[in-house]
Amino acid sequence: MKIAVLGTGITKFGERWEKSLVDLAEGAALEALDDAKVQVSGIEAIFIGNMLSGRVDNQVHLGSLIGERLRFNGPTVRIEGACASGGMATREAVLSLLSGEYKKVLVVGVEKMTDCQNSQISEALMSAAGEEERRAGLTFPSLFALMARAYMEKYKVSEKDLAAVAVKNHFHASFNPKAQFPFEITTKQVLKSPKITEPIKLFDCSPISDGAAAVVLADKDTPCQVAIIASAQASDTLSLARRRNLTKLLSVEKAAQKAYQMADIGPKDIDLAEVHDCFTIAEIMALEALGFYKKGEGWRGAVEEGTYLGGKLPVNTSGGLKAFGHPVGATGVKQVVEIANQLKNKAGKRQVKGARIGLTQNIGGAGGTAVVHILSND
Amino acid sequence: MKIAVLGTGITKFGERWEKSLVDLAEGAALEALDDAKVQVSGIEAIFIGNMLSGRVDNQVHLGSLIGERLRFNGPTVRIEGACASGGMATREAVLSLLSGEYKKVLVVGVEKMTDCQNSQISEALMSAAGEEERRAGLTFPSLFALMARAYMEKYKVSEKDLAAVAVKNHFHASFNPKAQFPFEITTKQVLKSPKITEPIKLFDCSPISDGAAAVVLADKDTPCQVAIIASAQASDTLSLARRRNLTKLLSVEKAAQKAYQMADIGPKDIDLAEVHDCFTIAEIMALEALGFYKKGEGWRGAVEEGTYLGGKLPVNTSGGLKAFGHPVGATGVKQVVEIANQLKNKAGKRQVKGARIGLTQNIGGAGGTAVVHILSND
Repeated sequence: MKIAVLGTGITKFGERWEKSLVDLAEGAALEALDDAKVQVSGIEAIFIGNMLSGRVDNQVHLGSLIGERLRFNGPTVRIEGACASGGMATREAVLSLLSGEYKKVLVVGVEKMTDCQNSQISEALMSAAGEEERRAGLTFPSLFALMARAYMEKYKVSEKDLAAVAVKNHFHASFNPKAQFPFEITTKQVLKSPKITEPIKLFDCSPISDGAAAVVLADKDTPCQVAIIASAQASDTLSLARRRNLTKLLSVEKAAQKAYQMADIGPKDIDLAEVHDCFTIAEIMALEALGFYKKGEGWRGAVEEGTYLGGKLPVNTSGGLKAFGHPVGATGVKQVVEIANQLKNKAGKRQVKGARIGLTQNIGGAGGTAVVHILSND
Repeated sequence: MKIAVLGTGITKFGERWEKSLVDLAEGAALEALDDAKVQVSGIEAIFIGNMLSGRVDNQVHLGSLIGERLRFNGPTVRIEGACASGGMATREAVLSLLSGEYKKVLVVGVEKMTDCQNSQISEALMSAAGEEERRAGLTFPSLFALMARAYMEKYKVSEKDLAAVAVKNHFHASFNPKAQFPFEITTKQVLKSPKITEPIKLFDCSPISDGAAAVVLADKDTPCQVAIIASAQASDTLSLARRRNLTKLLSVEKAAQKAYQMADIGPKDIDLAEVHDCFTIAEIMALEALGFYKKGEGWRGAVEEGTYLGGKLPVNTSGGLKAFGHPVGATGVKQVVEIANQLKNKAGKRQVKGARIGLTQNIGGAGGTAVVHILSND
């Protein structure tokens, strides 16, 4: 597989009260088109990744809405798969290019989450979880807390080990002015932050965010600096209650296996990765599911600094969901933006030197859906 | 293009208070798999068409939810494009098969609309319309009333001419036990029905419905009785306010042109069609945009009975959105189900004799999005 990444765009993530959902989408889209040196009229279709607009903004038909704003008059489609919506929109765009139907398309991931009460958002987000768990009153932090507790007990891991992920991702975000939290935090701050649901504390969680990210993709015959060389998606049960093992992300394992096979490479060939750290435990489990660390050893990544900028395998150089922000539908596209810019040697102070191959991993719900992309500049 | 249609499934449409959204999806999916003689494990991906689940059911991540119910553990994706969600899900499934990524996939269109107040549904549906028109307090009947008034004035057409569409589609539905309204109505009943927004009366409108439809699709190498030979999507402005001409459906014209080109045929080669008659005026304008009737003459279809069963070009033999029902995300898939069954000579009392080529046309909003598919049994 070879799908050209021609351009990328991304807004500042955070509490963007001055911008609407469509404003954000437009901002990222125009930046990506400009970067790709492509006019709107040069695009044949737009794929939108968005989770909550029906619920939070009472706006569906988002493809049409964003298309109209961009003065685009071709086909648009919205893809939804909870927090994996952005990765899935990228993937559907890739498949449309492989089908031969289009030669050049735009992908926009966008979410506006701060325009309503936090309690509404918690409830809305739980619409991505299993029915049993919703009825039991669980929230996403509590689902991941269940996974964290199982993991910590099995592998004898401490809250401090989890905290290391947050500290690392804030460190990376401190080099990224578009991050929601472009500043460092300490382990002590994480450990002393308010308890949400044991063992998860406030600073183990990614924030509620507004933001958008966009990429212009093109078919294999289009010359490019960076290409998507693998795209894979896999599933696990929606409910944690139905899983045999809470200490691993099966959907991520399956998607990663497929992606490595497709690219004919292995985890050792990856130079950097953007993974789905919606909670600190999620990054640790992702590192294992992606084959970067053995089972029970993913926590070593941040603790031993192998996943730091300058380490063996830098992870979440953007700042991750934790510190860059997590406008859910935008996240999967943002990951592709970060990796593409790294592979183009355009990542500024957070540049991973000599990076050739990068990976993105995006999940929906508590891992019910997983999407993995591999990019290369070869 | 050749995409095999291996099997179809459809639930009874109507007020299905005894069934949940997922129950409906499961019912249609299992029937389609059974019809295709394919196990769930023989499917590689599921594409879900749904518009309102985020808003009405507070449920997103529907792919994962429905996948779990079907005990399917592969990739799932939800496609949303307002009332065109079903047609678009079919189209994304087609593109995924053309890409070579999958060989066999399931498409499920599903909507559950009757579990909330009618006023809530009206508001939720308007989330598919342009911002200006929402703010002005318009509803979908009033948007189509604007189009109807412009059309009636320009082409000297009466309310009775519009009513003929409803009478025809109810007549067709009287042969279809799965229809929401499987009975005939008279022109007088339509004309005397409560006024909603002039010139649209209650019986000019399609109903609020629950229901699901499903198809199993396979790649070109899979032997089949019926195949999709063209798939096209196009756009117009979301807002009516920005259109130059209210008397035609530009997006439908564009999608139809593309589809005819792709199948290398013209409107005259079509033996029957399922069109998007959300309101009676919408069928009339669709017939013109699809090239079946000249501009200003689409109303002749039902009035002169050319679009009746037994006529030159039977339209909406299923009963259409008007009488079969319109669970929005299911509609585009339902149209494919009806045409496939007609082309397999399995439509019972409403069989179009000797039908070889059929067309489906599905729109989102007031025609902001249009999807056209052409099927053949050759």
